[in-house]
Amino acid sequence: MPAYKAPLREIRFILYELLKAETLSNTVPAYADATPDVIDAILEEAGKFCENELQPLNHSGDEEGCHFDNGAVTTPKGFKEAYAKFVEGGWPGLPCDPDYGGQGLPKLINFAVEEMICSANLSFGMYPGLSNGNYNAIHAHGDEAQKALYLPKLVTGEWSGTMCLTEPQCGTDLGLCKTRAEANADGSYNLFGTKIFISAGEHDLTENIIHLVLARLPDAPAGIRGISLFVCPKFLPTADGGVGARNKVACGSTEKKMGIKASSTCVINFDGAQAWLVGRPHKGMSAMFTMMNTARLAVGMQGLGIAEAAYQGAVTYAKDRLQMRSVAGAKFPEKPADPIIVHPDVRRMLLKMRALTEASRALSYWMGMELDIAAHHPDPERRAAADDLVALLTPVVKAFLTDHGFDAANLGVQVFGGHGYIREWGMEQLVRDARITQIYEGTNGIQALDLVGRKLGTGVGRLARRFFHPVSEYIETASEKPALQEFVLPTAKAFAKLQQATAWLAQAGMADPEEAGAAATDYLRLFALTALAYMWCRMAEIALDKQGGEEAAFYEAKLAAARFFMARLLPETNSLFTMLTAGKATLMALPAEAF
Amino acid sequence: MPAYKAPLREIRFILYELLKAETLSNTVPAYADATPDVIDAILEEAGKFCENELQPLNHSGDEEGCHFDNGAVTTPKGFKEAYAKFVEGGWPGLPCDPDYGGQGLPKLINFAVEEMICSANLSFGMYPGLSNGNYNAIHAHGDEAQKALYLPKLVTGEWSGTMCLTEPQCGTDLGLCKTRAEANADGSYNLFGTKIFISAGEHDLTENIIHLVLARLPDAPAGIRGISLFVCPKFLPTADGGVGARNKVACGSTEKKMGIKASSTCVINFDGAQAWLVGRPHKGMSAMFTMMNTARLAVGMQGLGIAEAAYQGAVTYAKDRLQMRSVAGAKFPEKPADPIIVHPDVRRMLLKMRALTEASRALSYWMGMELDIAAHHPDPERRAAADDLVALLTPVVKAFLTDHGFDAANLGVQVFGGHGYIREWGMEQLVRDARITQIYEGTNGIQALDLVGRKLGTGVGRLARRFFHPVSEYIETASEKPALQEFVLPTAKAFAKLQQATAWLAQAGMADPEEAGAAATDYLRLFALTALAYMWCRMAEIALDKQGGEEAAFYEAKLAAARFFMARLLPETNSLFTMLTAGKATLMALPAEAF
Repeated sequence: MPAYKAPLREIRFILYELLKAETLSNTVPAYADATPDVIDAILEEAGKFCENELQPLNHSGDEEGCHFDNGAVTTPKGFKEAYAKFVEGGWPGLPCDPDYGGQGLPKLINFAVEEMICSANLSFGMYPGLSNGNYNAIHAHGDEAQKALYLPKLVTGEWSGTMCLTEPQCGTDLGLCKTRAEANADGSYNLFGTKIFISAGEHDLTENIIHLVLARLPDAPAGIRGISLFVCPKFLPTADGGVGARNKVACGSTEKKMGIKASSTCVINFDGAQAWLVGRPHKGMSAMFTMMNTARLAVGMQGLGIAEAAYQGAVTYAKDRLQMRSVAGAKFPEKPADPIIVHPDVRRMLLKMRALTEASRALSYWMGMELDIAAHHPDPERRAAADDLVALLTPVVKAFLTDHGFDAANLGVQVFGGHGYIREWGMEQLVRDARITQIYEGTNGIQALDLVGRKLGTGVGRLARRFFHPVSEYIETASEKPALQEFVLPTAKAFAKLQQATAWLAQAGMADPEEAGAAATDYLRLFALTALAYMWCRMAEIALDKQGGEEAAFYEAKLAAARFFMARLLPETNSLFTMLTAGKATLMALPAEAF
Repeated sequence: MPAYKAPLREIRFILYELLKAETLSNTVPAYADATPDVIDAILEEAGKFCENELQPLNHSGDEEGCHFDNGAVTTPKGFKEAYAKFVEGGWPGLPCDPDYGGQGLPKLINFAVEEMICSANLSFGMYPGLSNGNYNAIHAHGDEAQKALYLPKLVTGEWSGTMCLTEPQCGTDLGLCKTRAEANADGSYNLFGTKIFISAGEHDLTENIIHLVLARLPDAPAGIRGISLFVCPKFLPTADGGVGARNKVACGSTEKKMGIKASSTCVINFDGAQAWLVGRPHKGMSAMFTMMNTARLAVGMQGLGIAEAAYQGAVTYAKDRLQMRSVAGAKFPEKPADPIIVHPDVRRMLLKMRALTEASRALSYWMGMELDIAAHHPDPERRAAADDLVALLTPVVKAFLTDHGFDAANLGVQVFGGHGYIREWGMEQLVRDARITQIYEGTNGIQALDLVGRKLGTGVGRLARRFFHPVSEYIETASEKPALQEFVLPTAKAFAKLQQATAWLAQAGMADPEEAGAAATDYLRLFALTALAYMWCRMAEIALDKQGGEEAAFYEAKLAAARFFMARLLPETNSLFTMLTAGKATLMALPAEAF
């Protein structure tokens, strides 16, 4: 297995030098305690935990997988112990509400922790990840009694949570959901139905599992407007917060998957399981989306985590593996061959991984910080702006970072050559694990539709302006600095294409929604690459300022990656623009039966 | 598992309508028997065999994998029986020399058969595939006695063959090979060393396995010029062609891999195994390359096969799966939702798979036919031209078709959504199986270096002209036909970029070979997309001629795919051109220790 070293220096660069995370503790009272020394201590501890506890279980967890036996799921060897340590360390409560026992730390910090967990062991990360989504939904939509009952246990990690959405006949289209709720006299409901693909639906890590379930009330209108959200615990809680009688909810089987094999993926049967309505009747979808948006960003962090792990593995191998001589003449004549990192095509792969990973980290952490601002900034105007920006960029972060995670994992395999294909080297697992991130929490195609069909149009382009305005202003200011020209000029070109494409979409998509659908995926990628270019400009600016000082090599590397990005990656935006503005005609011409 | 239907109509379109394969039987005496009715009968039989015998074993073979026990490898259930039927049907000898019992049919036909085998069961295809490579090498470089001894058994398929190149310390760089040969008094040698990643190195399908092994003679110069080729059978053949004493060659273990799990991948130990020199001393590399070039095209066909299988699976699912309504209004109001094929983004994925698969088939089959011409055309000039063209396009076919195979498999998974990630649906297996094709027989990065570093320069651009001239002429003629403009114009633009890039490479790469290395991968893709555009022009021309006649829908679909290709895929060439001509600077700036 490739070793993993938590990239703390990279993370601190984004937190303090790019995002000025210390302003959170200075200007947002809720985060007054999140000073840099506190943050640093947390990140260091998290890094150690990921390196020493989680990463060593990644390969063995993949090889062993979860075991299903008569309704019970056993996680692979070592997972139970690692989870116990995770709970002991207080990690589940890191970003949670202090009113329920949480540490109330910024989500930004949790993003960094999530990245590291996913680099080390994506399967493990699924369990607390789902719990956190579940926590968020109950926190936002549960009544006081529900919050008091469930949140403290989710915060400690004694109990875990799930999100039960998918059914055999519905994934993307939850309006087709058939699971139904029958009212009991005491105000509770009984659920009947089958949910599939339920991550962490059953396992041996916690004493109780709290399912959040989409289902229909008896009087529910058809379709998406008739879905309600229910909380349905595996064991009914006792009055004192203990674990009572077993509820009529059971795991029918687990899925055999391509990857994340140590994460249990369950069929969950509700056979009259007792459940309670969360939020208002028929408003389950919007409640679910509260959770989903955070979850989508979290899946983006999974992509980032995999990309970082793949890069680290590939770099180590590329420095070690001796094969052929540099075409510019032997670099290590005393060795039987040169390390493959001398070859331009190997560097192309490594730099692609690196330049996209670093800018992806910048973009996603920025969203993490905006989430915190949206939640707790004293200025309502500032909160609203942050909320808009996060809403706009959530699909971009989810789709682009997971596509990149998968691509980076594949580049990692390619750098390893034949050894990349062999399981014991650990690189192919990253590919298999990463592949699901492009699918779940809304496929990346759905993310693109969310961006063009929902986010762009909101408030007559208000969301888009939250991004376009600062970028526009930045380009104007920065282009006056000669040293920045080499970064700002290509970024300005890409940004112009993005603006043109946005205008094209507004017009064409308004007239014909199929045009928006036809353009969506290419548009999202154009958007993402432009956003990353903006990130690279800002990172390069910092690096230019610190050139020649302490850590000169660190900042030189930033400039090198920025230059590579501008020259060899950003030009993709040109093709994307041409492709998407070509319109829907060639996609829609062929009748379905001719496929 | 997705069902597989041999795409015989598509194959016939390429063979007869595009390539005029009947000219082979008319103008090349060696192929006089390969008339269209003979070819059709063979393809139909092959299609049935793949559909009924091989495809049903694909998923079970993946789940079960090969078993290793004390030096013996057992293939998954059903493989032995399927291989026996394969032998019984005479398939191994299809393209082989009649002097050794082969059927002497065109390689073109074998390409089509290989495509179908790889769609149905890539793992199975590995066994006869390796044997065929082994056959080719012995046929080209063995002496008469060796040919008489081994070829008839390889032709019937009673014996199988391997290619033993890789060692732990050398894959791409075979000059580092350490396996050594000690001379015996009788003219034979004893081999000592360990080879890894040996496909079909040990198995239970045949009574004997013939290893071709790269090793060093005692007086060998260091490096790549000191490698010789040896033939080393598992069992020493008896004088009457039977199986004699066990040789000192043994399988030490098998690899656990990401995919092609039913193909055995072995560590093979040579502990003084008796072997015989094939060809001249120290000339093993060039002998190996004879085989390697055919093998690289065959790997390209594996990519094509996977892409076709993924497309078929995805289309079936996209027509069946009901989810959401068309944004243009419900298409099937009587159903609970519309099939997902109504959605533009799903069509984008399907059309990308299809447009690249069909043009890839055209390009690779064209090379198959040129191989036949190179081998047996009466006109030596024509043979030389064909040989050049195949040499030029072999790395393009290998790299592009395998990249496409992998991408198509991933698009297939994406169309399936969550179900694509579940093993029982069979789509994720295609991803895992396809992944190796980008690596073995020379990674795709090595293919790109072969193209820019070797093929472009050969004969002062003679090879390149074999492709550029006919394309140039075609564009000139075709652009006079108004109906073809929509295809020829974008192709001409891409071709101009390719020519410019080639000129740039010739100049920059001459001055600095690292420039060629830095541009190679993007250049190969630019080359491939331009070649596919040329194929689409020619296919569209045929389709235009037959519009409105019989099979109108078939030809309309060709035009639709061609239009999609031009509008939504070919523009990638613009970005590739910009990226590759950006030069090596940003790739080489970062010192190795800064990675």
